Amino acid sequence: MRNRELALQAATALLAEPGAVLTVEAIAAKAGLGAATVVRAFGGKDALLDAAVAGLLEPVIQRARDLLAEQTPEQALRTFLSELIAFQAAHHALNDQLDGRNLPATTALRADLVQAVEQMIAGARRDGAIRTDLDPALTTTLIGQTAYAIARSQPASQELADAFITVLMDGLRPQPPSPPSRPSDDR
Amino acid sequence: MRNRELALQAATALLAEPGAVLTVEAIAAKAGLGAATVVRAFGGKDALLDAAVAGLLEPVIQRARDLLAEQTPEQALRTFLSELIAFQAAHHALNDQLDGRNLPATTALRADLVQAVEQMIAGARRDGAIRTDLDPALTTTLIGQTAYAIARSQPASQELADAFITVLMDGLRPQPPSPPSRPSDDR
Repeated sequence: MRNRELALQAATALLAEPGAVLTVEAIAAKAGLGAATVVRAFGGKDALLDAAVAGLLEPVIQRARDLLAEQTPEQALRTFLSELIAFQAAHHALNDQLDGRNLPATTALRADLVQAVEQMIAGARRDGAIRTDLDPALTTTLIGQTAYAIARSQPASQELADAFITVLMDGLRPQPPSPPSRPSDDR
Repeated sequence: MRNRELALQAATALLAEPGAVLTVEAIAAKAGLGAATVVRAFGGKDALLDAAVAGLLEPVIQRARDLLAEQTPEQALRTFLSELIAFQAAHHALNDQLDGRNLPATTALRADLVQAVEQMIAGARRDGAIRTDLDPALTTTLIGQTAYAIARSQPASQELADAFITVLMDGLRPQPPSPPSRPSDDR
């Protein structure tokens, strides 16, 4: 049980290290354990990673649910996006090295995360705070892909994240029926 | 000279192939040449890649300049972003496998590309078509990072690209001085 906890802590720490490679050997070295001990404690590398990532994602999803309960959907979306970008920026290895692995808990929690964002968008649409001329699922994908790109930008920049959220949230608002027309030959 | 042309065409084609690995061997095989011949024709793999990428980027930058000459800066930015996303989506290997290489022509053309987008943004700010409360360089980074993420989304989706450009361009517009206030306790 203690070995399990040590391996889990080491894997979680590695997920936050820029450039870290998530091998069993690296996790074992960080935990001060042998590789065989680490594998035995979890029954495999995928199970270990799944537990580590799930442990990171659970509070993120809880936070999304709390925000939905406490704020308007639009405010919740804005606050959550800001925190999600900071979380993603702090956990470089989270998406890079998990492709193609069997991580059932992680997969379920990611679906929960998408669902929480979808609830924010649906609520904000109902409130008239977000435009309704875009497909909600498309809007979720758009937000997820662009927010992740901003989180991954090097060097990390709070200014860039803030500018992104400002432009995104303003662009998601219901727009005036006709944009101001400008002459095209005034230059 | 003929070998040079064959190798260049092969490298250019590989840059558009999803999942292609840009090794000298792969380029040579596609060109129907030996690896040594390919290296000799260009004096090295980096020089070959540099020529292939530069050949792809040159018309993109020319297009940006043409748009700036023909349309308002805001229209040019919108049109160019749409075409840039399609170009990036069609050339998967363009950014992935070029890091850390010595590609002087590519580096110079990328700077030209950033400059062209900066000119569009500066012109649109002067026209009052783009908000001026964000730093122009930050705005360029924001556009570049998010557009690239949309271009890389799988599966590629014209709908997603269109929604992105709509939200981005609306979010970049000068915003009304005060957002409509909504009660936060109306749910």
